[in-house]
Amino acid sequence: MSRAFDRAELEAALRRIGEERYHDKHPFHVLMHEGRLTQGQLQAWVLNRFYYQKSIPLKDASLIARADDIDLRRAWISRVIDHDGTRPGDGGIERWLVLAEGVGLDRSYVASCEGVLPATRFACEAYVRFVREKTLVEAVASSLTELFAPDLHKTRIDALLAHYPFASEPTLAYFRTRLVEAPKDVAFGLDYVLSHAMTREQQELCLAALCFKTDVLWAQLDALHHAYVSPGLIPPGAFQPEQRR
Amino acid sequence: MSRAFDRAELEAALRRIGEERYHDKHPFHVLMHEGRLTQGQLQAWVLNRFYYQKSIPLKDASLIARADDIDLRRAWISRVIDHDGTRPGDGGIERWLVLAEGVGLDRSYVASCEGVLPATRFACEAYVRFVREKTLVEAVASSLTELFAPDLHKTRIDALLAHYPFASEPTLAYFRTRLVEAPKDVAFGLDYVLSHAMTREQQELCLAALCFKTDVLWAQLDALHHAYVSPGLIPPGAFQPEQRR
Repeated sequence: MSRAFDRAELEAALRRIGEERYHDKHPFHVLMHEGRLTQGQLQAWVLNRFYYQKSIPLKDASLIARADDIDLRRAWISRVIDHDGTRPGDGGIERWLVLAEGVGLDRSYVASCEGVLPATRFACEAYVRFVREKTLVEAVASSLTELFAPDLHKTRIDALLAHYPFASEPTLAYFRTRLVEAPKDVAFGLDYVLSHAMTREQQELCLAALCFKTDVLWAQLDALHHAYVSPGLIPPGAFQPEQRR
Repeated sequence: MSRAFDRAELEAALRRIGEERYHDKHPFHVLMHEGRLTQGQLQAWVLNRFYYQKSIPLKDASLIARADDIDLRRAWISRVIDHDGTRPGDGGIERWLVLAEGVGLDRSYVASCEGVLPATRFACEAYVRFVREKTLVEAVASSLTELFAPDLHKTRIDALLAHYPFASEPTLAYFRTRLVEAPKDVAFGLDYVLSHAMTREQQELCLAALCFKTDVLWAQLDALHHAYVSPGLIPPGAFQPEQRR
């Protein structure tokens, strides 16, 4: 195998994966950001994406549960707390439920995860399993889509406010908060990968881990697009939007 | 199977397990509390028990990683934070290392876990695996040795201060802190078990989980006793006390 990348080369290779594969470029997001999704399609997105949100603390606690390095555990635990909050009504999962109510979904229906597309479950569960089973540095590397998330969140906040009547500061609080949380999280994760993936073989595994994660995100939008946009084939048992506009 | 216990009966059955099986009654603890351990024997205990301390956040993060119930995750995460602390120099693991230095052990030797008895590793790893693989309510039930811990910690603090020159408020800070943390933790855990183990079958599994946990604690002291007290057969590779008194 070739020589190892230095830090700058590895960081550049990681960032290139975002340019080529991050889901900001998915046609479903393009429709969203151009204001061309119906309310039913937006509801389907919020409903399915809730399953991803709900998987995140399980994924992050799984990483902590494997980490012998106390500094890694200390840095990582804020992710769980950010998502779960410290009391009822607090945290990222709660903020996502506020968004769900904002787009006209029933809170308990969303929280039950009934109606979520099977492909969404499979993708999210693959992510949790990846973090439980791969090496720790690969597990950390798979989180580095957060390098690319703030730009997407900024675009999304502006687009939703411009095009959709439900959009408001309370309903979009999830994204505003992630604008603050994600850069703090990713600074640690990126430094961890750059410091721990020392051989070319480990570095290639980390690049593959980030590709895998972009697949996890992309596959969720593919499933949404197929079910709710084109050809619009909703699988048995999945959410049926009541209204289209 | 017989009828389900009501809450009071189940709590009484759990507490009976402590009376019969908790490791406060182990001969090694009796020697410790009577001031009859040599410094080398105390060192062996501190060194081996460090492996248990180090396993606790992994065990607790494993439980969080499996918990769909956000209230359970919110309550449980303080255990990880209590043990790991939020910065270098903070947390239960760090306080245990202060104790280790107090009894004359080298901090980095203890932290490396070299010299730990294989039986200690096996017992602690069995505990982590139990929490990862059994039902969630059994995993919670296995934490309920904390019902019995405060009395043991109080006895231990007094005994160590009375009998051993290394004992001081800084070296015993771990135990003082647990006197505050354990009752808060166990109140939640006990209520969870009493509220979630509704069938007699689930209740029997929870009682078995607590028995299992008392076995995990007892087996560690058996291994210490065999290696360092009687017959004093230290296995290959394990810690060799330099001084006996």
